[in-house]
Amino acid sequence: MAAHSPHLLPDHACLIVHGSDRPGIVAAVSALITRNQGNIVAFDQYSDDPTGGAYFQRVVFHRPDLAAALPAIEADLARTLEGSDLAWTITDQSVPKRMAILASKQDHCLLDLLWRHRRGDLPVTIPMVVSNHTTAAEDVRSFGVPFFHVPSTPGPDKSASEAEILKLLAGNVDFVVLARYMQILSSDFLQKLEVPVINIHHSFLPAFIGAEPYKKAKDRGVKLIGATSHYVTDDLDEGPIIDQDTIRVTHADSVSELARRGADVERQVLSRAVLWHAQDRVIRHGNHTIVF
Amino acid sequence: MAAHSPHLLPDHACLIVHGSDRPGIVAAVSALITRNQGNIVAFDQYSDDPTGGAYFQRVVFHRPDLAAALPAIEADLARTLEGSDLAWTITDQSVPKRMAILASKQDHCLLDLLWRHRRGDLPVTIPMVVSNHTTAAEDVRSFGVPFFHVPSTPGPDKSASEAEILKLLAGNVDFVVLARYMQILSSDFLQKLEVPVINIHHSFLPAFIGAEPYKKAKDRGVKLIGATSHYVTDDLDEGPIIDQDTIRVTHADSVSELARRGADVERQVLSRAVLWHAQDRVIRHGNHTIVF
Amino acid sequence: MAAHSPHLLPDHACLIVHGSDRPGIVAAVSALITRNQGNIVAFDQYSDDPTGGAYFQRVVFHRPDLAAALPAIEADLARTLEGSDLAWTITDQSVPKRMAILASKQDHCLLDLLWRHRRGDLPVTIPMVVSNHTTAAEDVRSFGVPFFHVPSTPGPDKSASEAEILKLLAGNVDFVVLARYMQILSSDFLQKLEVPVINIHHSFLPAFIGAEPYKKAKDRGVKLIGATSHYVTDDLDEGPIIDQDTIRVTHADSVSELARRGADVERQVLSRAVLWHAQDRVIRHGNHTIVF
Amino acid sequence: MAAHSPHLLPDHACLIVHGSDRPGIVAAVSALITRNQGNIVAFDQYSDDPTGGAYFQRVVFHRPDLAAALPAIEADLARTLEGSDLAWTITDQSVPKRMAILASKQDHCLLDLLWRHRRGDLPVTIPMVVSNHTTAAEDVRSFGVPFFHVPSTPGPDKSASEAEILKLLAGNVDFVVLARYMQILSSDFLQKLEVPVINIHHSFLPAFIGAEPYKKAKDRGVKLIGATSHYVTDDLDEGPIIDQDTIRVTHADSVSELARRGADVERQVLSRAVLWHAQDRVIRHGNHTIVF
Repeated sequence: MAAHSPHLLPDHACLIVHGSDRPGIVAAVSALITRNQGNIVAFDQYSDDPTGGAYFQRVVFHRPDLAAALPAIEADLARTLEGSDLAWTITDQSVPKRMAILASKQDHCLLDLLWRHRRGDLPVTIPMVVSNHTTAAEDVRSFGVPFFHVPSTPGPDKSASEAEILKLLAGNVDFVVLARYMQILSSDFLQKLEVPVINIHHSFLPAFIGAEPYKKAKDRGVKLIGATSHYVTDDLDEGPIIDQDTIRVTHADSVSELARRGADVERQVLSRAVLWHAQDRVIRHGNHTIVF
Repeated sequence: MAAHSPHLLPDHACLIVHGSDRPGIVAAVSALITRNQGNIVAFDQYSDDPTGGAYFQRVVFHRPDLAAALPAIEADLARTLEGSDLAWTITDQSVPKRMAILASKQDHCLLDLLWRHRRGDLPVTIPMVVSNHTTAAEDVRSFGVPFFHVPSTPGPDKSASEAEILKLLAGNVDFVVLARYMQILSSDFLQKLEVPVINIHHSFLPAFIGAEPYKKAKDRGVKLIGATSHYVTDDLDEGPIIDQDTIRVTHADSVSELARRGADVERQVLSRAVLWHAQDRVIRHGNHTIVF
Repeated sequence: MAAHSPHLLPDHACLIVHGSDRPGIVAAVSALITRNQGNIVAFDQYSDDPTGGAYFQRVVFHRPDLAAALPAIEADLARTLEGSDLAWTITDQSVPKRMAILASKQDHCLLDLLWRHRRGDLPVTIPMVVSNHTTAAEDVRSFGVPFFHVPSTPGPDKSASEAEILKLLAGNVDFVVLARYMQILSSDFLQKLEVPVINIHHSFLPAFIGAEPYKKAKDRGVKLIGATSHYVTDDLDEGPIIDQDTIRVTHADSVSELARRGADVERQVLSRAVLWHAQDRVIRHGNHTIVF
Repeated sequence: MAAHSPHLLPDHACLIVHGSDRPGIVAAVSALITRNQGNIVAFDQYSDDPTGGAYFQRVVFHRPDLAAALPAIEADLARTLEGSDLAWTITDQSVPKRMAILASKQDHCLLDLLWRHRRGDLPVTIPMVVSNHTTAAEDVRSFGVPFFHVPSTPGPDKSASEAEILKLLAGNVDFVVLARYMQILSSDFLQKLEVPVINIHHSFLPAFIGAEPYKKAKDRGVKLIGATSHYVTDDLDEGPIIDQDTIRVTHADSVSELARRGADVERQVLSRAVLWHAQDRVIRHGNHTIVF
């Protein structure tokens, strides 16, 4: 995985190709880019088994007047990869993804994302923050970001509040970040939403799934705590992991001290996942991620 | 070094004792605390050489009605340690230290301290932020903290601007934090200031002393970058180190990418140094620190 | 937790005191040490709740002619702490603990311990290595350590082989280390053994309990792998954790690559646990450890 | 940088291409591999400036009957890249590099390399260990590796002992590892040797260049110590860095404790550099390395 600038790249395209591995993919794709006047500036590939496994490739190339050339490049891609088992997507790296943030009372992940965005460290736009509490409204708006309050419907059936959130998000966002949003989203909501959802869980998954992971960590007496960013699926805390990290703790750390120190890890792990997703570096494959 | 809550502790005192090691210090000090109705809740000690070295001790004890009892305890300490080579200081852990922040254009360390303070993670008050630029004024004031703009006097002689800063700080603060304040403070200023000054340097000292450490790091081709918090002395970047940390980088990280990723390390290393200083955990000894 | 030399300390005693917290313990214990001509060189204490919680204290003191003085110190301790809820143990830090190693085919943890011991980095003696395979015999003996081969009894009932191991260990060792010993020890064996057993598990517990943790880690798609050293109890992989660590991995790491890279973490985490146990730095409390 | 198996790869070639960046390199090289019946299994590239910078590419491809096909592939490469500014080398990944180790009294890095090699974790052969002391002779030979003792010539002129070492190495090795070899090699020796030399320095360079870095670290009061592996050049401790790492230390760590704990970091950092070099993952570029 290469380190790269978090900035938007004018006239740069990112091409993701994945599917069944077979000889000559690199040559076919790079020839295609060359004949379309592109110059490759980053190239990553991975095959989980060189003899008949799954193949993953991410290429970033520079092409003057990219916007004008994209339709022709896409047609060429369709022709070139026709009949193969390979899927592809191509994105213009000068176009920021639209990221909504769902938040609750805890504001450390939310504010960290807003601050990084203002600083120019996240190549996204933030059309809205939606929260089931009003506490963060003023902070969010001071960053010039719209804030919407959607209280959680009491009781187990969240369909009313979910419907209201869906109405706000639908068509307006390319992905959603749960910045310590403490509500479980229904399978129905996720299906209707149609865009990826990234969550931050405050443990090194698969340890301490579910509620109160810091309390569970204290109870078990671990010497490390951590955080995990992952795509949300129907199975709670079981989605494909994007990034994780841990820090050392001791017997002397109380549950609230674990929460305080863990907040720093959460912020870092979530912001890395968001950056990588925004840069099309993360490819989902079953319950795994390939991160280039 | 024990992990502890960042909160103020009512009716708790912190006693620091240091000087020439001799048998019986622990016994004498703990007996003193017991006979003054104190209950020890944290006890750390270190001797750099058990046979005739320097001795360092930090004790936190709970004493109901501490404020009323403090004068008697201090008198007992003076009597007990009289004739010994041991210096002591005792502080009431319910009284927050007053911390001024000096800042410049880069706002990541400044905002991180303000945000941690608002969250209740730093047991200090922040009577003022002083900056040689006005860019952060609105942000700072949104945290309810006074902001003062003191432009740097052009040219090498900074005595005029230093005098103005000194007037703001004198008597109003217990320590000063340089949150990426890019001006070198004169020896005269430091002497008149009379309170400790904590700096964050954006390299793992003693590597890359002085200006542009990320550029120097790139030029040298290191595979780690880091940050160092230290007390400021007359010798630039040579003061006693409080904390340091590093992260891995690669050949692909540009100087601006090093700066972006290093900002996270700077924030963490500086906030830890501030917390530990605020809790009287750091004892200076020549050019070293003992951090309990 | 202080860093200390791994060497045996002539005329140094380590006193552990733990039980219900009450005011004055530090004073009582330090006065006792002073009146017995001891000079405290390291002092650690922890209370899990200053108002009525459990109290833990580790003191190392220097006392000329310690061996001669120990009976009197022990009698004084018995008198001083009589009637309290406090348990105590005192050990002579010039006397190495006797450590047996149980091993299997994987030799990395075994050889690492032997090598550290030869280098003088573990204050123990190693009276024997017992393995259910013969592969390591020559290596072990080249370190001057006796090697005993006890094949595992086929089938689920291991009582015959366990009885043979017990005969070798009984009375000859102060603690046992499972250096990737792949057999589950019966509750009966552990009870009869009567000395602490330290295991290294090749995951960051509580994730991936049981067999094949690296395979489970690959299946889950984690971005970190780790290792955990813990005391062995009747519950598999559920005993009190002494130390843990993790390293970053990527999608490109195969299961065997995880095992190769994890071996380094295992060696480090196990050797730290062994050192700390050998220095009486680890106090067990229910399913937790306090590590000073 | 991808994680890969440390094993030799039958019928796999590694092709390194580097020089001035220009459009179409990826396409040209991958077409070449395809028309020579190769299947790319790993592909890394980096350009330090997409508009006219230096370009670096490492491709591993599988080609049945590679040994027979290599001459034709090389001829094709020469034709294809003729007239360009690009240099290339191609290596058969089934052929282990021959690695000599130069050692001194400290044996931890030496034994670690021998042990990893025996375990199958380093794709090299070790034709010899040369030491200026005899202490490690028996250990080295127990690994089946020849040991040669070449005492250092007393005085500053080491030409006699260097000549003797050169005679042993010349033609017999592909690279040399200094495993805490405490002698400075002359410029003349390095020139005549003609193969790369990898050193491990026991500090996080560029901090603490030269002798006694752990003592210097203690004197400066750092809170981190580290190790650095680098290629040896005429300038002591100034060669291109391959890898570095650090660990946290405290005021309580003595110089010998720093050395004990640092030994673990040295072993890891050196073994990673050796593995990466053996796998042709490291490209030197001026005083930098690109590590794929």
